[in-house]
Amino acid sequence: MYVIGERINGMFRDVGQAIRNKDAPVVQDLARRQLAAGAAALDVNVGPATSDATGAMLWLVETLRAVTEAPLAIDTAKWDVMAKVVPQVPGKVILNSSKADPEILTEYLSLAAEHSAALIGLTIDADGVPGNVEKRVELGAQIIALALEAGLTAERLFIDPIILPVNVAPKNPVHCLEAIAQLRRFADPPPHLVLGLSNVSQRCNNRGLINRTYLAMAMAHGLDAAILDPLDTDLMDLAVTADLLEGKMIYCDSYLQAARRA
Amino acid sequence: MYVIGERINGMFRDVGQAIRNKDAPVVQDLARRQLAAGAAALDVNVGPATSDATGAMLWLVETLRAVTEAPLAIDTAKWDVMAKVVPQVPGKVILNSSKADPEILTEYLSLAAEHSAALIGLTIDADGVPGNVEKRVELGAQIIALALEAGLTAERLFIDPIILPVNVAPKNPVHCLEAIAQLRRFADPPPHLVLGLSNVSQRCNNRGLINRTYLAMAMAHGLDAAILDPLDTDLMDLAVTADLLEGKMIYCDSYLQAARRA
Repeated sequence: MYVIGERINGMFRDVGQAIRNKDAPVVQDLARRQLAAGAAALDVNVGPATSDATGAMLWLVETLRAVTEAPLAIDTAKWDVMAKVVPQVPGKVILNSSKADPEILTEYLSLAAEHSAALIGLTIDADGVPGNVEKRVELGAQIIALALEAGLTAERLFIDPIILPVNVAPKNPVHCLEAIAQLRRFADPPPHLVLGLSNVSQRCNNRGLINRTYLAMAMAHGLDAAILDPLDTDLMDLAVTADLLEGKMIYCDSYLQAARRA
Repeated sequence: MYVIGERINGMFRDVGQAIRNKDAPVVQDLARRQLAAGAAALDVNVGPATSDATGAMLWLVETLRAVTEAPLAIDTAKWDVMAKVVPQVPGKVILNSSKADPEILTEYLSLAAEHSAALIGLTIDADGVPGNVEKRVELGAQIIALALEAGLTAERLFIDPIILPVNVAPKNPVHCLEAIAQLRRFADPPPHLVLGLSNVSQRCNNRGLINRTYLAMAMAHGLDAAILDPLDTDLMDLAVTADLLEGKMIYCDSYLQAARRA
């Protein structure tokens, strides 16, 4: 499981405040703790209420690069922020994210190709999040085709079939499972399949339980990456155990600790 | 999720002792607690070290029928015990279990048909537990074909693809997932797919975590029944949450409690 830590997001109060006060240690501590807990990459999102999103993003990148070389997932819906920030990120970078509309996606893919970056493509277009499996798979296949054409290798491509909260879209979790299973078979080697996991439990009770349960179900269908909170120990233990049960590691009595050390 | 409570098994010290002492309240209390926790049926197993297995099984059946009308899964590998006990069980009964060899299975199916019973068929034959998915599916399909021929409806048939401990058979959990997914598509309506869940974690550390994780993965592939410990609250909460995420119930803030009341 390729874990992209979700905690450096201005939506969280501690991070929002750290961005406003340019309080580097808060951000750097969150980075170190997420990496120590098993994150392979870090999501970076300035949050909703920032007047200078580009400036805030560049400050976060600089602050993070002072302590880690881990891939940074530049998480913004704004093209101008993405286009200005990506060229200035030293080291590995992931564009998070592009929609599937060809004219939009082509711009993002050019930017990613130019900077040897990875990209997360969402199975969403001008019509919004598809209400069925077929359209999700169609959009995912479109992303794969355009990405390979643009020169992105499968290992630099992440497809996100978009998980919606179970309390507002009860059929959506099943649609995503089926889309993941199908999209895994669309290229050889396949692209990564990723989800913004915690969205499944937005405004629900038992959020941790819902996140854990859905992660196991999605991994059983081929999900191999997730944006999630690696500081949730129960969730990370489950992710390691699902890898074990998929035969991706061999059991030993200390398999949880062994996975954490690795 | 159709839960068959696993706790009335002479392998457990409290139950073994209760069988030897004919201590009915111990067994009846375990029955009531499992049913209150969400079990729909109760597995009944006299355990390994009983000289008079038939007598012990008949005592358990009588003891349980004094407090519940829930289906009883007569769990024995001995044909003579099964053949003597099943005709004497008042109410609903499940034969647990038969192997897939046609000559053996035919006897069990006749017994089940004669007493309007359900049957758990194991994807195992004289060669043992299959080492690949194909043979598991082939044996499962054989069970389905013979069962339908014998007049068992799909709803009275449970296929058990046999889960082995992950510490001795690391590829087995994945084989079972794939077999479950394929066997769900072999009849319309499909038979139930069932596992003796706790076997996946035999002699492992973190048994609860391994059981929970694998249950979610298997449910995502179509498992709709399991022999498990309903007194494990974390496990039952996960099973309810997986049903929620499969769209089998609608979210409300008290969905866990609602499922328990139902």
